[in-house]
Amino acid sequence: MFIALLTDFGLKDPYVAQVKATLLKQAPQIPILDLTHQISSFNVLEGSFVLFTSYKHFPPSTLFVGIVDPGVGSKREIVLAKNQDYSFLVPNNGLLSFFVQHKLLQQAYFLEKKFPASSTFHGRDIFARVAAHLAQQPIDPTWWKEVPLKELKTFALPRPVLTPSQVKATIYYQDQFGNLLLNLENKHYAFPLGQKGVLENFPLRVVKTYAELKAGEVGLLQGSQGFWELCLNQDNLAQKLNTYPGKEISWQWNT
Amino acid sequence: MFIALLTDFGLKDPYVAQVKATLLKQAPQIPILDLTHQISSFNVLEGSFVLFTSYKHFPPSTLFVGIVDPGVGSKREIVLAKNQDYSFLVPNNGLLSFFVQHKLLQQAYFLEKKFPASSTFHGRDIFARVAAHLAQQPIDPTWWKEVPLKELKTFALPRPVLTPSQVKATIYYQDQFGNLLLNLENKHYAFPLGQKGVLENFPLRVVKTYAELKAGEVGLLQGSQGFWELCLNQDNLAQKLNTYPGKEISWQWNT
Amino acid sequence: MFIALLTDFGLKDPYVAQVKATLLKQAPQIPILDLTHQISSFNVLEGSFVLFTSYKHFPPSTLFVGIVDPGVGSKREIVLAKNQDYSFLVPNNGLLSFFVQHKLLQQAYFLEKKFPASSTFHGRDIFARVAAHLAQQPIDPTWWKEVPLKELKTFALPRPVLTPSQVKATIYYQDQFGNLLLNLENKHYAFPLGQKGVLENFPLRVVKTYAELKAGEVGLLQGSQGFWELCLNQDNLAQKLNTYPGKEISWQWNT
Repeated sequence: MFIALLTDFGLKDPYVAQVKATLLKQAPQIPILDLTHQISSFNVLEGSFVLFTSYKHFPPSTLFVGIVDPGVGSKREIVLAKNQDYSFLVPNNGLLSFFVQHKLLQQAYFLEKKFPASSTFHGRDIFARVAAHLAQQPIDPTWWKEVPLKELKTFALPRPVLTPSQVKATIYYQDQFGNLLLNLENKHYAFPLGQKGVLENFPLRVVKTYAELKAGEVGLLQGSQGFWELCLNQDNLAQKLNTYPGKEISWQWNT
Repeated sequence: MFIALLTDFGLKDPYVAQVKATLLKQAPQIPILDLTHQISSFNVLEGSFVLFTSYKHFPPSTLFVGIVDPGVGSKREIVLAKNQDYSFLVPNNGLLSFFVQHKLLQQAYFLEKKFPASSTFHGRDIFARVAAHLAQQPIDPTWWKEVPLKELKTFALPRPVLTPSQVKATIYYQDQFGNLLLNLENKHYAFPLGQKGVLENFPLRVVKTYAELKAGEVGLLQGSQGFWELCLNQDNLAQKLNTYPGKEISWQWNT
Repeated sequence: MFIALLTDFGLKDPYVAQVKATLLKQAPQIPILDLTHQISSFNVLEGSFVLFTSYKHFPPSTLFVGIVDPGVGSKREIVLAKNQDYSFLVPNNGLLSFFVQHKLLQQAYFLEKKFPASSTFHGRDIFARVAAHLAQQPIDPTWWKEVPLKELKTFALPRPVLTPSQVKATIYYQDQFGNLLLNLENKHYAFPLGQKGVLENFPLRVVKTYAELKAGEVGLLQGSQGFWELCLNQDNLAQKLNTYPGKEISWQWNT
């Protein structure tokens, strides 16, 4: 058993530490790993993407606690979703959209138990206590009501548009190196190595590694997160294009 | 036993890792938790506030090591302060001000033992070694001299001014969401839900959750850290007001 | 046994967590410590310096995994270097330059085993698996080929120029407090306390602690990382001088 945390709390404030301390108070022997605490504030799409691209690298039986929760204190449910290997404890606000779309979940439960809690920090006052409980015993039917999977809130995922001459894609995520991760799964698309195109004023080429690229040449490559990426070699493409997650981006293929 | 670290070292430089490595070298079995390493540089008030609002969420017997130490290398003492449940190892520079003010400490000791140490990094060269020692054995009377609690340095905490028509408060802390934590303890003040006012050009309302607020409306709510907070819903109030910890802020109540 | 990680991955993206999760999947009992994940992107000199100034504070038998790897996916080898106490798993790109220069290594090996891997994230797909293997068993001769130490890539380290009236040094590192760490090892240079000079428009003085400095006076002191540092007292010298690692800096001694 293993707990992984994904939040938008950042690392300056004491909030992550208070969540972990609350967990450790009740379940001192459970190892905790930080997935990330720097999801952009309130950005459920970004949180959902990072959770989806990362979960499979963790040991089976990991419990993921995902707290990107702009509706904290309002009526949104708290959900436990499970499949054979992994569990996910999240607010019911779309954080599991990629999992639902990929049919990766088998059960869902809504939390019925009430906790004395602040109105603004359920991560510490509810999620941490519930996670500590889940880490130590089976699902308690007095705490949880099983619900159909369709009760899980999802948001629509944008679809790319591809023609022989053009690709219109959406940026799911941009990393600190400035690489742009697109809504094009590696396994669904097969752009041939060496294919060339133009993206805004940049020449674009399908490559395998960053190191193949010349200065100022944009690469399109099969990324390590399971999605095609746009990139520069040792430079920041996101800054150069002044772009951001959720934005559409397009390029023309040379003919 | 459990060690929690609070510093202003940040996470880029190797300083936190050198403190932890030194601790682990001598006390490999003691779990270490990061409270935060991003206290603003040299900001003893901020460190004091974060320590005070967080300690009670940790398991009893936690040893807090607080290193915000602009006087490193000068004559300031190194203090161990204790109560029944918790211990605090800090420079004697005000980091325990909130604890002294709330009468939460029972004993205090000054470190008498000398260590070979660099002049600029006592966190690694002294605090880590002393913490490893404290984590493994009782207080050694050849290392420590007990002193009266009044030997603990404190700074004056600002007092709010309240009239029926106005509140003048001081910002103790602002978090990465831009919420402003004020010098108004939840338990000492009872602003009724729904009470309205004006803060600069913003309408202000006493609410329970962020989600109740309309766009552009400032909320005043009982915060999760034990102090009243000013906030916006999914927006950054600190940026909008161009404010900072230590600054006075005031609003008028509607009459 | 103990694994320490140094990367330029930052803490926002899920990359560090994926490396750790992969490690934990195969070697769940091995403690992992973050040295830093905020080496400037692709900056092998900075990574090399931080590794060199930090390693000796760790328990003997620590395995350092250093992933600052702009050539990921290209032909650069993966190296294991060892001495009696410590091991280093790194790309062969200069990350061990300080260790080679100081003759601190005794053996070197190139990785011969092939892994199924993404082209852009060998940290997760190769380094983590190899580290988990090294953490649990002796060096497997079917995985590794021993090579002469001279096969380790190094870059030239800049040399300071000192005359009785002037010092020209190079900045190896600047920390978040704005202190400038120079290519002047504490043990090789002995500037007498109180010696005075001028650096750009600032008076400069050799001191022992930050607290001795007046406002606006630059201090030169023996730093905690083993190198002489330039600093201000509670102020950011790097910002004031608009400087950066790798830049040359010089001052005149008063005569």
